Amino acid sequence: MSNANFKTWLHEIIFGTEPGPGRNFDIFLIVVILSSVAALFVDSVASIHQRYGDFLFGIEVFFTILFTLEYGARIYCSPNRRAYIFSFYGLIDLLATIPTYLSIFIPGAQHLLVIRVFRVLRVFRVFKLFHYMSEANVLLRSLLASRRKISVFLVSVLTVIVVFGALMYLIEGPENGFTSLPRSMYWAIVTVTTVGYGDIAPHTPLGQLVAAMAMITSYAIIAIPTGILSAELIQESQRMITNRQCVNCAKFGHDKEANYCKHCGEKMPPPQ
Amino acid sequence: MSNANFKTWLHEIIFGTEPGPGRNFDIFLIVVILSSVAALFVDSVASIHQRYGDFLFGIEVFFTILFTLEYGARIYCSPNRRAYIFSFYGLIDLLATIPTYLSIFIPGAQHLLVIRVFRVLRVFRVFKLFHYMSEANVLLRSLLASRRKISVFLVSVLTVIVVFGALMYLIEGPENGFTSLPRSMYWAIVTVTTVGYGDIAPHTPLGQLVAAMAMITSYAIIAIPTGILSAELIQESQRMITNRQCVNCAKFGHDKEANYCKHCGEKMPPPQ
Amino acid sequence: MSNANFKTWLHEIIFGTEPGPGRNFDIFLIVVILSSVAALFVDSVASIHQRYGDFLFGIEVFFTILFTLEYGARIYCSPNRRAYIFSFYGLIDLLATIPTYLSIFIPGAQHLLVIRVFRVLRVFRVFKLFHYMSEANVLLRSLLASRRKISVFLVSVLTVIVVFGALMYLIEGPENGFTSLPRSMYWAIVTVTTVGYGDIAPHTPLGQLVAAMAMITSYAIIAIPTGILSAELIQESQRMITNRQCVNCAKFGHDKEANYCKHCGEKMPPPQ
Amino acid sequence: MSNANFKTWLHEIIFGTEPGPGRNFDIFLIVVILSSVAALFVDSVASIHQRYGDFLFGIEVFFTILFTLEYGARIYCSPNRRAYIFSFYGLIDLLATIPTYLSIFIPGAQHLLVIRVFRVLRVFRVFKLFHYMSEANVLLRSLLASRRKISVFLVSVLTVIVVFGALMYLIEGPENGFTSLPRSMYWAIVTVTTVGYGDIAPHTPLGQLVAAMAMITSYAIIAIPTGILSAELIQESQRMITNRQCVNCAKFGHDKEANYCKHCGEKMPPPQ
Repeated sequence: MSNANFKTWLHEIIFGTEPGPGRNFDIFLIVVILSSVAALFVDSVASIHQRYGDFLFGIEVFFTILFTLEYGARIYCSPNRRAYIFSFYGLIDLLATIPTYLSIFIPGAQHLLVIRVFRVLRVFRVFKLFHYMSEANVLLRSLLASRRKISVFLVSVLTVIVVFGALMYLIEGPENGFTSLPRSMYWAIVTVTTVGYGDIAPHTPLGQLVAAMAMITSYAIIAIPTGILSAELIQESQRMITNRQCVNCAKFGHDKEANYCKHCGEKMPPPQ
Repeated sequence: MSNANFKTWLHEIIFGTEPGPGRNFDIFLIVVILSSVAALFVDSVASIHQRYGDFLFGIEVFFTILFTLEYGARIYCSPNRRAYIFSFYGLIDLLATIPTYLSIFIPGAQHLLVIRVFRVLRVFRVFKLFHYMSEANVLLRSLLASRRKISVFLVSVLTVIVVFGALMYLIEGPENGFTSLPRSMYWAIVTVTTVGYGDIAPHTPLGQLVAAMAMITSYAIIAIPTGILSAELIQESQRMITNRQCVNCAKFGHDKEANYCKHCGEKMPPPQ
Repeated sequence: MSNANFKTWLHEIIFGTEPGPGRNFDIFLIVVILSSVAALFVDSVASIHQRYGDFLFGIEVFFTILFTLEYGARIYCSPNRRAYIFSFYGLIDLLATIPTYLSIFIPGAQHLLVIRVFRVLRVFRVFKLFHYMSEANVLLRSLLASRRKISVFLVSVLTVIVVFGALMYLIEGPENGFTSLPRSMYWAIVTVTTVGYGDIAPHTPLGQLVAAMAMITSYAIIAIPTGILSAELIQESQRMITNRQCVNCAKFGHDKEANYCKHCGEKMPPPQ
Repeated sequence: MSNANFKTWLHEIIFGTEPGPGRNFDIFLIVVILSSVAALFVDSVASIHQRYGDFLFGIEVFFTILFTLEYGARIYCSPNRRAYIFSFYGLIDLLATIPTYLSIFIPGAQHLLVIRVFRVLRVFRVFKLFHYMSEANVLLRSLLASRRKISVFLVSVLTVIVVFGALMYLIEGPENGFTSLPRSMYWAIVTVTTVGYGDIAPHTPLGQLVAAMAMITSYAIIAIPTGILSAELIQESQRMITNRQCVNCAKFGHDKEANYCKHCGEKMPPPQ
């Protein structure tokens, strides 16, 4: 097999998602990623670390060598190496290997090992594998389409949080746990998102009244992002937006009955 | 009455849901199931168990004999016995009886008795009884239709949880209750779902900042499944409106509860 | 003024909601109701009760006499007295007066006084006053239209709660606060509804895993009622259901373009 | 430059949002506002205040002079000064400056300084700057359009809260933390909004049963505002689709982002 042929063959296996070697490789990879993350989880429990720490470190070194080989192979068979290295997945793939090497050479870098957990982000490749990309894209497109509304919502929420935080700092004061404005804001976020740890809670009657008002406000607030996204998802499904693409401006988002591109006015090819 | 006739008659009573003996049997059965579950609940309270334990055990034995007879009758009159025994309800029906027998013969199997609570799953038969199956099916169909979107959502949520859990383990550390990665992930789930027990809560300012970010993220996250299901349910109800057609004037646009065509007054066929 | 005329005049004032005396009476009544509830609230604070208890009891007696007179007047001028007395509002109106009389004649009935708080239910009359009945009816009709789906949802949720409660009772046991099945179910409800007091929380790793699964489940669960109601409200607003009523079967729910009643097939009068 | 010209030029810079000096001024202003709020936050932490208190007070004085100059300039160049001074933003702009002056002249007014945090409300100008006003308006219009439904919802929620609060006061009583009706209502709000601090929690079995019922109720309640707003936002986006008409082929059904008619390819007028 020639060098170029070998590269193409390797590329198909590593980057491909078609049934056959490409798919098998991806399934194997996801099993390996999840196993290595599981090992990290188990190793972080103090009692297990004391008894099986050395064994788990051996497993970790084995996984790291595997990931290093994979990373090398990905760079080797990429048609555009620079693009892969600086892509989102390229950086995550690199992050999957370096912490282990650093912990060997730099003694104080023990706690850097937790970064290896971000390997879990590589699991998103699973969507590509099972042809779930279109569902993921619908959700992403809906989120993107409503990004302006969500920005307005977030700015409003943060303002509400600052105002309620400042009010409670004024009313409750340091003697009731609201020791500073940042801490009051932390309380406000915990309350408005309805998490409600209870580590900081109002003690004065006036503080409880203002807190109650913040909670009632949070009701209206929760309704807003849900409403925005519901409206967007319904529009998405009603417009029956297909995969039709304009031949002139290459944009998507055309419905079944469109004869002309709504973005540039070009004649659309008939729907398949 | 011949043997075959008796079987058919018994089958109609036990498996049937039509008004008459079949329906009465089912209503009686649901009352018995709920009574036996209520007895289990009451018996689990220590002070009641001490005083009325023997009496409640008697009731339990009575219910178990009843359920055993019913289970035997169901097997006897099933046209396809194997299919019933290994069906979901068949297994639940069996589970309703064996723990009591085990607790008599094996002395250490006391805590197995809690399994009897799963009898409550038999209550789902109530939907069939009151013709609520179509509503249950609409909900199930909507959940199934959006199972890919929900999978994408769950994988994304779990990744967000792992990332936030690892970050907090790094920032807060064992001295603030984040003793291991699994425990940090437990904290992340408690926070992102807005349950917020407060048994583990961030103590450092940086940890509180990251926790606040996790809570704001959970806002967007809660909106996603609601949006998905709303869109699906709306489509479901609109599909029904658009699919019904008048046999006289051939017009569409009839809603679920229409008995007569609103355009020409013709009797409508029942919705499918 | 004759007796019958006086009755009609009184009826218009007390039961009427038109601008003029009828409306003014209702506004005055709501102010009185809210004042009497506010007095109850203030009186329940121990320190205030000690200082102003006698004064607040005087106010309470004054309000009770007012409510008694109003109740008498309502009975007097009702065309159908029995219907009013046994209506929802009639019973609430009665409940607004008797606890005070009982507390005077029966010394031990002090804590019955709290029942007076239910006077607040009379405030719902405010909807009639400000012509908000149609909005209240849309919400009620949507809730009623989806009552079957909501029943299915509630039965499913209660089953999920019983199953998770029993599992946690088995796993955590009395030594971790799960002292009985009812208490475990209380924990399950606190968790699945994302309230999360933290008074009972899992301590064992397995218990925390099951609790985490219950929380993730609660995500899907929260989406269901919201989806149901959103779909119903959207349908309601899209069908543009008017106040058109069938002259034959007297049913509502007809859209703008309906020529025939969808319930009985009768010809509809043209829309106004 | 004449006086009138100078005024117009200043007005364009301060009140304008067009690219160029007007936009740059606004961006600069928002940076200054956020910096001054950040300084307030940092200063409220006791340890930082002790070490850098004098330095941060200097910064505060600097920001106050800046805001005073800006406030003066805004009054100076407003065509209708009275309208500006008594507008929402005019009052917020004034509130941004006076607390610092008061704290200099009145020694006891230290805690008034927190009012300066409300400067953050000026940040809403950012929407105007980035042409997000239309998104903010859609959200506001949807909230306004559903204000009657939301009023009905709020009155119902408050009544539910009063009823559950009174019930728990009756059942649990002062010995379990429900010391007064207002405090019981605070508990009810914390519970129904699913915040759940856990600072007050039911201890008696009956109290826990009623609390569980309140939580299940809160499920249905959360669904209502979300459903209302979803329905409104969907209608809003559909109205826009149905209202746009092609000037060439007179067909409808164009979505918000369409530049060309999808039926005939004609250039579309911009959406209103």
